[in-house]
Amino acid sequence: MAFLDSNFILSTPLAQSLYHEVAATKGIIDFHCHLSPQEIAGDRRFANLHEVWLEGDHYKWRAMRANGIPEKYITGDATPWEKFQAWAATVPQTLRNPLYLWTHLELRRYFGIETLLDETSAKKIWDEANAKLADPALSARGILKKFAVEVVCTTDDPADPLDAHGQIRREQLEAGVGSGGGVGGDGGGADGGGGGGGGGGGFTTKVLPTFRPDKALTVGVPAAFNAWADKLAATANVDTASFGGFLAALAKRHADFRLAGGRLSDHGLERCFAADCTEAQATAIFDAVRSGKTPDAAEQEQFGAYMMLFFGELDAAAGWTKQLHLGPIRNTNADLLRRVGADAGCDSVGDFPQARALAWYLGKLAERDALPKTILYNINPADNYVFATMAGNFQDGVTAGKIQHGSGWWFLDQEEGMRGQLNALSNLGLLSRFVGMLTDSRSFLSYPRHEYFRRILCDLLATDVATGRLPDRRDYLDRLVADVSHDNAARYFGF
Amino acid sequence: MAFLDSNFILSTPLAQSLYHEVAATKGIIDFHCHLSPQEIAGDRRFANLHEVWLEGDHYKWRAMRANGIPEKYITGDATPWEKFQAWAATVPQTLRNPLYLWTHLELRRYFGIETLLDETSAKKIWDEANAKLADPALSARGILKKFAVEVVCTTDDPADPLDAHGQIRREQLEAGVGSGGGVGGDGGGADGGGGGGGGGGGFTTKVLPTFRPDKALTVGVPAAFNAWADKLAATANVDTASFGGFLAALAKRHADFRLAGGRLSDHGLERCFAADCTEAQATAIFDAVRSGKTPDAAEQEQFGAYMMLFFGELDAAAGWTKQLHLGPIRNTNADLLRRVGADAGCDSVGDFPQARALAWYLGKLAERDALPKTILYNINPADNYVFATMAGNFQDGVTAGKIQHGSGWWFLDQEEGMRGQLNALSNLGLLSRFVGMLTDSRSFLSYPRHEYFRRILCDLLATDVATGRLPDRRDYLDRLVADVSHDNAARYFGF
Amino acid sequence: MAFLDSNFILSTPLAQSLYHEVAATKGIIDFHCHLSPQEIAGDRRFANLHEVWLEGDHYKWRAMRANGIPEKYITGDATPWEKFQAWAATVPQTLRNPLYLWTHLELRRYFGIETLLDETSAKKIWDEANAKLADPALSARGILKKFAVEVVCTTDDPADPLDAHGQIRREQLEAGVGSGGGVGGDGGGADGGGGGGGGGGGFTTKVLPTFRPDKALTVGVPAAFNAWADKLAATANVDTASFGGFLAALAKRHADFRLAGGRLSDHGLERCFAADCTEAQATAIFDAVRSGKTPDAAEQEQFGAYMMLFFGELDAAAGWTKQLHLGPIRNTNADLLRRVGADAGCDSVGDFPQARALAWYLGKLAERDALPKTILYNINPADNYVFATMAGNFQDGVTAGKIQHGSGWWFLDQEEGMRGQLNALSNLGLLSRFVGMLTDSRSFLSYPRHEYFRRILCDLLATDVATGRLPDRRDYLDRLVADVSHDNAARYFGF
Repeated sequence: MAFLDSNFILSTPLAQSLYHEVAATKGIIDFHCHLSPQEIAGDRRFANLHEVWLEGDHYKWRAMRANGIPEKYITGDATPWEKFQAWAATVPQTLRNPLYLWTHLELRRYFGIETLLDETSAKKIWDEANAKLADPALSARGILKKFAVEVVCTTDDPADPLDAHGQIRREQLEAGVGSGGGVGGDGGGADGGGGGGGGGGGFTTKVLPTFRPDKALTVGVPAAFNAWADKLAATANVDTASFGGFLAALAKRHADFRLAGGRLSDHGLERCFAADCTEAQATAIFDAVRSGKTPDAAEQEQFGAYMMLFFGELDAAAGWTKQLHLGPIRNTNADLLRRVGADAGCDSVGDFPQARALAWYLGKLAERDALPKTILYNINPADNYVFATMAGNFQDGVTAGKIQHGSGWWFLDQEEGMRGQLNALSNLGLLSRFVGMLTDSRSFLSYPRHEYFRRILCDLLATDVATGRLPDRRDYLDRLVADVSHDNAARYFGF
Repeated sequence: MAFLDSNFILSTPLAQSLYHEVAATKGIIDFHCHLSPQEIAGDRRFANLHEVWLEGDHYKWRAMRANGIPEKYITGDATPWEKFQAWAATVPQTLRNPLYLWTHLELRRYFGIETLLDETSAKKIWDEANAKLADPALSARGILKKFAVEVVCTTDDPADPLDAHGQIRREQLEAGVGSGGGVGGDGGGADGGGGGGGGGGGFTTKVLPTFRPDKALTVGVPAAFNAWADKLAATANVDTASFGGFLAALAKRHADFRLAGGRLSDHGLERCFAADCTEAQATAIFDAVRSGKTPDAAEQEQFGAYMMLFFGELDAAAGWTKQLHLGPIRNTNADLLRRVGADAGCDSVGDFPQARALAWYLGKLAERDALPKTILYNINPADNYVFATMAGNFQDGVTAGKIQHGSGWWFLDQEEGMRGQLNALSNLGLLSRFVGMLTDSRSFLSYPRHEYFRRILCDLLATDVATGRLPDRRDYLDRLVADVSHDNAARYFGF
Repeated sequence: MAFLDSNFILSTPLAQSLYHEVAATKGIIDFHCHLSPQEIAGDRRFANLHEVWLEGDHYKWRAMRANGIPEKYITGDATPWEKFQAWAATVPQTLRNPLYLWTHLELRRYFGIETLLDETSAKKIWDEANAKLADPALSARGILKKFAVEVVCTTDDPADPLDAHGQIRREQLEAGVGSGGGVGGDGGGADGGGGGGGGGGGFTTKVLPTFRPDKALTVGVPAAFNAWADKLAATANVDTASFGGFLAALAKRHADFRLAGGRLSDHGLERCFAADCTEAQATAIFDAVRSGKTPDAAEQEQFGAYMMLFFGELDAAAGWTKQLHLGPIRNTNADLLRRVGADAGCDSVGDFPQARALAWYLGKLAERDALPKTILYNINPADNYVFATMAGNFQDGVTAGKIQHGSGWWFLDQEEGMRGQLNALSNLGLLSRFVGMLTDSRSFLSYPRHEYFRRILCDLLATDVATGRLPDRRDYLDRLVADVSHDNAARYFGF
């Protein structure tokens, strides 16, 4: 089979049919990503492949460093073209890394370029792609339309005023979009081949904020915490000098996010906090931090646990979905961190114990009758079975698929990782209730990740049918593929 | 290949031949399960599919909860038919979960029903299966005969008087069964198609108790511990007021279990206890608990370690096999636990460190020359290599396969889990000495689990032959398949 | 496909072509093994299959114990023939264990024997192989030539005077070998079929020492530590009474190893040490140990961390490569250890937390600008993703592939383990920069392990091409196969 053949990954006729006739016809609900709402609001145009592809992609940075490319050509002061050249020289060295496949899938789906990228083809591809980027169809909004992206949930700080989201929403309201349409129509297709998604000419993608209050937990660094708490006060217009005020400001922002259409929260942690903490204790810790004192490790654990229960209650009351991204070990290379900053590509897979603390957290919320819909994402594939079975402990018999084992994430965002998650979920839970794939990306060029995921899904199902492990019931299979590709998410989140 | 075709899972002609001509002809030695000895003694008749299938199956309960089915229809006060309907509606949502495959395999093997179960077929299947359940061939004993089950080892509390086992044994002795026959004949076949197993008309299955003294370790809850110690005293007719008496009562019951045919013990732990503890220390902890005091965590660890060494010595002296089921995190959902009770489906896969404590425990027993035959079961598949290699550290060069890496268990009791265990064992130990599969089930409908396991085994071997990784030596392969399916267990346990 | 067919493991024509036309033509760079330099210096001749195959192979010992073979026939006083018989009887019981495949691959590649080994064929194979061992082509040096082994890096104690290495080097210098030739020529082939490797008649294999200072960390056992420190003083001719002297002696030996051609160090640890330790603290701990006192656990951790940073600085300054072998739990069976000694086969896979301590260690070295080229080997396959991503955190953008995720090691030295490592590395790093396989073996009969590895590599690549996941670019693939099989190692280590 040719590289990236229309049937790549799809090993049987049934797999091909399920993908092309069902999965590929569905729009995209990108319920978790790191796209910039400002760039969507401003409908950013990209001058060249460097801007759209390399500027913020720490996956590629890591590959370049591993290939012996100096930092100058990665995050330094080389020209965009020089950086692209360095990337092009690296690409053939990424064989079997998902970057190789993604790179060429993206060149095809966005630019129609089928040439393999390497040093010899770099100039030609640079010129051809840059020319196409000049077309409004490849602006920030153009891309979202091209891939039939119905919803984009950005990831936002509670202290962020959400101006960009507001601007987009106002525009859409003025254009008569957004109140009626809703999510779930089958206008476009996720393979980028369908032209405009949704409602014809206008920009119909819902762009919604996600409440990510990681900074509310950083009491271990009082200076940073206090600066952030002050910023939060300003945004919320609620005094955060007292702990009560701090909680009120967070609740205010949570409500603001909801008004802006937000339906999810998100947390990035090594592991859940798990320690009993009274309101008085939390208040004392807060007050000490506000006066500049650093709490000890046990107090940080207590404060983290208190806050995470508070956030759980906010989410449950609002009918939101909470996302827990657990397990990375971050900023391991202090030297690189100093030179390049956070999210520079020196975070990796950790091996923290997860089960007991996660059980504690979900259990406490369940006891308070305040367990929201929750998606558990593990970064270490060795934890797949822990997470998939933990989800099963807290299903409530009311909301189908209430607790989800989230899609392969970050380092698991590739075929082996996705198959591992899909198999764990299938074996230990209900694949049929899965809300499926998201991009988790900083790049507008990541939407083919959905195509990739859907191909894998269809191939898994079809292989089981071919070997007598599943019945050849096309009605069942079509529904499952449609549900996991799109329809479950449309129902689950309540956008 | 059609769903559940006679050759499903068997991907080559050799795999098919190995399965049908060797594996399927062997009876079943179910050396670990949770069947009720009372129901076997009373030869329970099942009124309907709910009783035989849903009444105690927390795998199905979890799936139903994840599907949004209210507890009323799971463990609540809905009628059996309503509960079955709720299950039938859930079945199509379990695609790719082993429940989907098992459900239909069980419908075929027990009832000859090939219709797929869903809401539309529920009534027809309910009626047809219930009618067949009226046949004595599907009573508790009928099922054991149908599947050529030669031995059933139930799981029993030392404080249990074993009345049901005694009743069955007396009946069999009166009927002239059980002293002569023994285990290992090839009367029946594990695929349920062979009619009566063993000796024709009578009930020849050995029903033996397994010594599971988990409650002897629960000193963390003195009230429960003391109540149990008193019950033990009554059953053993040995005073348990003193620690010496407590140990004597346990030894007495161990001997009683042996007289009743027991040849295995079993322990369910998060991880092994590992702490030095003198007899004086253990006595002091025991005395404190008996007077109502709760020992601290270190003392609980010491007491656990002392008792587990004591149990190891009992097993070694009796020539028994010890089973260690390690790793789950239990009762995570206090709310559900309160409403439904233990074993309700809120236990899951834990991630406790295992290696050092397990090495400590096995090493201490080996130093005392009191290491019994032992089967190590891990619940977390990430521990497969730890367990498989740990087994290899303590082989004694006398008993072939003395320390076993146990079969995929609980959440691992499915194809991915079984292949993981079989591959770890193959790569790191001797598959040929493996005692193989057990049901670990509460349900009489779980016997096709052996068929499933044997198909996977045959397929693994045949695939290796097809690709030049194993020689095409049918004599070797036949022996290995027969040994792992049945003959090793018949030799190993000494029933 | 016949057992060990010339195309075994190679599932497509492309895989076959990549292996036979590229991979198999490359010599071997065995950059980590436990071969005896004395045996190479003395060009040991092996009297029989026991000597060359069973004498020191704890893999086989474990299998024999698991098969119920008494220790007498493993490490005891039985005759070589009796021990071989016991092994032969065990071989058919090892089906699906890599020992089965390796045993027959080695019989073919060294002796041209295609008969399957079991009790019935034992005598014939014993006689035939022993006769062939009389040929100088199967002496220690003959074997290295036969398999085109260009470099052998033995594993050596800093207190070892390296006499054997010196003898070999002097001989080679006198014969005009070693200064010119270098590594990287394509004279031979790793499949053992090519006759002499390198430069015709002479013994051209470079035999280089590896600096493994594990004993410098054993302050937990002062008597052993002090004896070793004294031995080190004698070898280095540097007084080790003071901490400064101890470090100087180690630095002296490091330099001596470099003069002897050494380019690697190696450490075997459960996990990295990670604790701040000033020079004054390290000195105090050292002085206490030298006076016979045992430091507590925290001090041992500190001392270990101090020394490991010191060793890292030595390696970085010398341009060496550091190897970290992390994760085993050793000597679990005190009883067997007492009877048979260390490395007797009672070590296994541990489950120690690795990420944080490893990040600490690599990070500290990076901060000091003293991070050498490093290879991270994990023993627990559950850690593959942790190690593969940790490597990516510390690539410096100068040396391509500077931090390596090492090849499947010890218990992972088989197809499942190798595929796991190759997939983790592929998905999370640059396979193309991988320095590839080593034997890590005590046996001269392990060289077909390279063939085995290369077949797997070629099969992985070709399968991806066949399914449209990689482009059918033979130039890319040929280069990758050549690089990973041989050329990367030739470039990376600077022998």
